[in-house]
Amino acid sequence: MADFEQMWRGLLPIGRSSESGGYFRQPFASAERECAAWFKQQATDRGLRLEEDGIGNLIAWWEPNGSEGAAVVAGSHLDSVLDGGAFDGPLGVVSALAAIDVLRARSVQPTKRVGVSVFVEEEGSRFPIACLGSRISAGVTTLEAALALEDRSGTRFGDALERSGLDPSQPITPWLADVEAFVELHVEQGRNLVDRDAAVGVATQIWPHGRYRFEFTGEANHAGTTRMEDRSDPMLSYAVTALAANKQARLAGQRATFGRLAVTPNGTNAVPSQVTAWLDARCESPAHLEDLIKAITRQAQERCSRDGTEVSITAESVSAAVNFDHNLAQRIAGALPSLPTQAGHDAGILAGAGVPSAMLFVRNPTGISHSPDESAPMADCLAGVEALADALQVLV
Amino acid sequence: MADFEQMWRGLLPIGRSSESGGYFRQPFASAERECAAWFKQQATDRGLRLEEDGIGNLIAWWEPNGSEGAAVVAGSHLDSVLDGGAFDGPLGVVSALAAIDVLRARSVQPTKRVGVSVFVEEEGSRFPIACLGSRISAGVTTLEAALALEDRSGTRFGDALERSGLDPSQPITPWLADVEAFVELHVEQGRNLVDRDAAVGVATQIWPHGRYRFEFTGEANHAGTTRMEDRSDPMLSYAVTALAANKQARLAGQRATFGRLAVTPNGTNAVPSQVTAWLDARCESPAHLEDLIKAITRQAQERCSRDGTEVSITAESVSAAVNFDHNLAQRIAGALPSLPTQAGHDAGILAGAGVPSAMLFVRNPTGISHSPDESAPMADCLAGVEALADALQVLV
Repeated sequence: MADFEQMWRGLLPIGRSSESGGYFRQPFASAERECAAWFKQQATDRGLRLEEDGIGNLIAWWEPNGSEGAAVVAGSHLDSVLDGGAFDGPLGVVSALAAIDVLRARSVQPTKRVGVSVFVEEEGSRFPIACLGSRISAGVTTLEAALALEDRSGTRFGDALERSGLDPSQPITPWLADVEAFVELHVEQGRNLVDRDAAVGVATQIWPHGRYRFEFTGEANHAGTTRMEDRSDPMLSYAVTALAANKQARLAGQRATFGRLAVTPNGTNAVPSQVTAWLDARCESPAHLEDLIKAITRQAQERCSRDGTEVSITAESVSAAVNFDHNLAQRIAGALPSLPTQAGHDAGILAGAGVPSAMLFVRNPTGISHSPDESAPMADCLAGVEALADALQVLV
Repeated sequence: MADFEQMWRGLLPIGRSSESGGYFRQPFASAERECAAWFKQQATDRGLRLEEDGIGNLIAWWEPNGSEGAAVVAGSHLDSVLDGGAFDGPLGVVSALAAIDVLRARSVQPTKRVGVSVFVEEEGSRFPIACLGSRISAGVTTLEAALALEDRSGTRFGDALERSGLDPSQPITPWLADVEAFVELHVEQGRNLVDRDAAVGVATQIWPHGRYRFEFTGEANHAGTTRMEDRSDPMLSYAVTALAANKQARLAGQRATFGRLAVTPNGTNAVPSQVTAWLDARCESPAHLEDLIKAITRQAQERCSRDGTEVSITAESVSAAVNFDHNLAQRIAGALPSLPTQAGHDAGILAGAGVPSAMLFVRNPTGISHSPDESAPMADCLAGVEALADALQVLV
């Protein structure tokens, strides 16, 4: 497995912060483009035929029987969250390339086309919708709507594509209709496999997931001269809501996080006029999600009425549960344990759009992800490559 | 008093946001430079001799007896907080110019030089120290230390000066040693004068004031896959601290505000690794300030130990109480009521440095300031001009 380790070392320095050790591979910024160039080189080195579509999605084809017909695809993404880890995304891409090497070393003769794919903008770290590349491919998000999305500095998705030399009027994932099976390998983002003492597992389901924008509005005022009792301070309403979200999620065994904030005017000596906060909530069922949001909303509104502030809540996105293809999972699972996940993935988007899809997870000792501390032992990564190669061997 | 209203209307459009109606007159940005140009034109129109020092502080001299000797100066500032009001600063500058007009109309013959001054960067909205212009003038902050200060985008104070065509190697307020009395008129930033049914009052004291940076450190993690009980979320520690600061200040009759935040990585789908929050605290005595900070610190630390996070607290600035010159206040007060203030002002910096200084406040019906809603009725503004003219007439 020298190939895996060599590939992994080649990717490691790209977009890594010398300060935090975390990764900054935002879509269509230089580090992520460098990762894309790295992938193209790997494809070329293996004699794989490379296709890039109009929005930057990549696929490298192993086609011993020609470039038409049914396809089996493995892949993941190369972008990262802000200050993220090395594994989330790249592990799946490197493992898929390494799995091709394994199949070739085993002298497997595929009867179908075998592809290694990279979807762009999986994390939603730049544009406001996660899994944008696979959403557009699957028709879940229209290209027209996507092109108008803006990043935090006001750059449109369409302009970011053009600046990267891409032409969104070109075809988008023309190969997707041929895919009989899509398999995404990913580092686990919790500790389910640790508890089960397994290096690799297969996914059953993605929990329902919602993102909600809470806009707390009060009255800007001087932080020194305004009596406490004369204030309408939206920071207080937000603080109570953040604590309420945590408590409600804990009590219900679900997940709720306020991780992103914008404060206006954000001055040390000013009571804020507005605090905008984004809630990320994931629950085992739509009913649990609805109950959780209701409970948080009620506590936010109660505190606002005490603070003399107002809150407006907008659901930016709400995804239903995604159930992966049961037959496909059974075919590739072998003796692997199965587990649910609370994270969105391109495989989830494709599954929701009717492409038979499956996921493999590789054990993460701490469960930490989206952080410089995200990790997986090399031995488990290599077990992941073997499991993916086994899965592809069954499918191709 | 047509002059006052005309001057006021001339300043009103500069740096006003069409969206919020608030003002963005940050130091050495275009709107604030336009205000400075406006002031220079007003000085020229009145035949006043204009001086600009090496850091952009301005003074316009009325010198019927020559450009040497004892001086009486009135003035304020032209910069604003982010999304601030029209009155905080400009009211004092416009009123001082109008007061010169009143004295001339009254045929007052001053025996001393009379100046109208504008100090730069009073609000600390761009560089991290408020009253920077007057601090450097008074020697409270060294020029060398000031030049190295950086704004949020990393631009140094020294570079901002140079880009505005200023040369900090030139003399700084060479006139300050000649000032026998400095009078700053300002819109009130609370409702003391409303309660007392008075249009204008004279200040006695500025409360002690501290700014503290709270850095809450936890562990970045995935917002979906990390179980609530596996998190070290600094947002929760911050939320409890913000609520504690508010409660402690209310109980003690003092002031505490968290109005500025920076969240890392500030992503919707990531538990933050760090939340940095700035506390602004103002109290009637140093002992009250110390007690307040102790109580807030204790509650922050208690919550951190529950959250598995850490907090580090840095006092960025702590100012003692400033008592204005009692004799000077008595000479200019006439029948005006006296009041304390919780806001820092250039007059406070000069008073602390031994320049006899006084302040006049003009009634603010809502008490709101540092906000687009900041206001003062025209009749009260004109009463302020009369009071300032009366004060100068006594002093010159």
